[in-house]
Amino acid sequence: MGIYTEQLHRHLQAIECALPTYLPTTDGRAGVTAEAMHYACEGGGKRLRPVLVLEWMRLCGGDPQDALAFACALEMIHSYSLVHDDLPCMDNSPMRRGKPSAHAAYGETMALLAGDGLLNRAFEVCLDPANTAALKPENVLKAAHTLAVAAGYEGMIGGQTIDLANEGKRIDVDTLRELHRKKTGALLIAACQLGAQLADTDADTVNTAVEYGAHLGLAFQIVDDILDATATAEQLGKPVGADEQNEKTTYVSLFGLDGAIEMAKEETAAATTALDAFGDRAADLRTLTAELLTRIS
Amino acid sequence: MGIYTEQLHRHLQAIECALPTYLPTTDGRAGVTAEAMHYACEGGGKRLRPVLVLEWMRLCGGDPQDALAFACALEMIHSYSLVHDDLPCMDNSPMRRGKPSAHAAYGETMALLAGDGLLNRAFEVCLDPANTAALKPENVLKAAHTLAVAAGYEGMIGGQTIDLANEGKRIDVDTLRELHRKKTGALLIAACQLGAQLADTDADTVNTAVEYGAHLGLAFQIVDDILDATATAEQLGKPVGADEQNEKTTYVSLFGLDGAIEMAKEETAAATTALDAFGDRAADLRTLTAELLTRIS
Repeated sequence: MGIYTEQLHRHLQAIECALPTYLPTTDGRAGVTAEAMHYACEGGGKRLRPVLVLEWMRLCGGDPQDALAFACALEMIHSYSLVHDDLPCMDNSPMRRGKPSAHAAYGETMALLAGDGLLNRAFEVCLDPANTAALKPENVLKAAHTLAVAAGYEGMIGGQTIDLANEGKRIDVDTLRELHRKKTGALLIAACQLGAQLADTDADTVNTAVEYGAHLGLAFQIVDDILDATATAEQLGKPVGADEQNEKTTYVSLFGLDGAIEMAKEETAAATTALDAFGDRAADLRTLTAELLTRIS
Repeated sequence: MGIYTEQLHRHLQAIECALPTYLPTTDGRAGVTAEAMHYACEGGGKRLRPVLVLEWMRLCGGDPQDALAFACALEMIHSYSLVHDDLPCMDNSPMRRGKPSAHAAYGETMALLAGDGLLNRAFEVCLDPANTAALKPENVLKAAHTLAVAAGYEGMIGGQTIDLANEGKRIDVDTLRELHRKKTGALLIAACQLGAQLADTDADTVNTAVEYGAHLGLAFQIVDDILDATATAEQLGKPVGADEQNEKTTYVSLFGLDGAIEMAKEETAAATTALDAFGDRAADLRTLTAELLTRIS
């Protein structure tokens, strides 16, 4: 976890402990689906989205502990999207996070149900009064709505559709921007936004969180495109050059390698600037933001 | 719509008008998924679940209009469950509601996404402050949580898992009861429960709604089993005798035809008794409850 400060690492540990407890137990007649739900949430690497929830909660004056249910709900939605993306009718990926994908391990039917179960569970968890007793009901409603919109047709599902509808086609920069803003950007933005909302902060600060998340999300995507074009498979731990082989439009194919690197730097700078108002309190997020760029330098 | 009184028919019409407006518009780069979402919600027959939401809202003193978003959200969840159930890796059904199933019309990938989109949209819609302005935030939270739990692992998804895990096996009566209570019962119960919750009624009345929904759901399932064993395909508009061919355990296979008819009558009577406290105000629900039985008499 090289990109995390001590503070962010504490968030990560809290999430790893809490996440399984928010999933159903695996006993009972329907246990196999619960098992597949746990499996799909295990070994989730950086847990960037839920860590952002907790850190924005802290940054805006709230207790990160009180945002844990929402952080885990967001991670469940991220995990369900990977389970469904991996299915034979989508990307047909046999592996995920270094182990067999959910359908490879549990069969297609159970993977479909486990994905549905995780998406649904996200809302069960963040709407459960037992998990949000310390929060104002109106903030719970706001944050749950933010989560739902980001995960839905106007967000991740829409982005996924645009991606699939343009497979093997060259697309223009506007389409590429909409695709990424929705497919990967929406959940990253929502992470920051709902963290701020749960902290009961003012609308301007919530907008700052959205701005930060948008720049971070774009920087993240451009860096991914650059790595696919330049890194070795060994550095990345997965096959590289896939974008070029699939004639996929990326920030590198549209703007060239130097242009893409320049853009990644600009977005990173803009994300950092958005944190200015927080002074030293945002030191951990500044470090995180800068660390993402070091992957390409 | 022979089973509906004038009052319930007005609910049905309100739902038919509102449902498409709560779905995304089909323009834009991701429009194909929006189209498939609309397609999956069209021609939904009786709309029993959302009608129950509105009628319980009315019965408990609320304005049915204010519960429309929740009624439509529940119908979206019912529709998504049918889309995913029909997929090749589940029941592999080419037809649904007298037309090609979603994946037959839009392909498997888009059907998967449209199903995800509908489940997610349900929460977007009922958590959107613009749709629930007339309701108390704490009642919105309660009702949304009721919806989430009923649709999830403890409810519909768990029931679906139990059904699939026991395909082709003889099961005992406890398993059959749990299966149906979760798979079809949970959403019917939730419809009554959240209608009452949105009306800001007391806990005892909400419990009465749950009790009514539980008996109605069970009566509904037993009647379905009886019809599969006794009706002609012409009467039902779909193939019959499938349960026996598939050696499926049903209330008829466990208790015989006469036993099952007796149970259906008992559950119907219990549902009706639960309505006693409402006096004449519950006349429409009494008629509905009785009408369900006439399908087997």
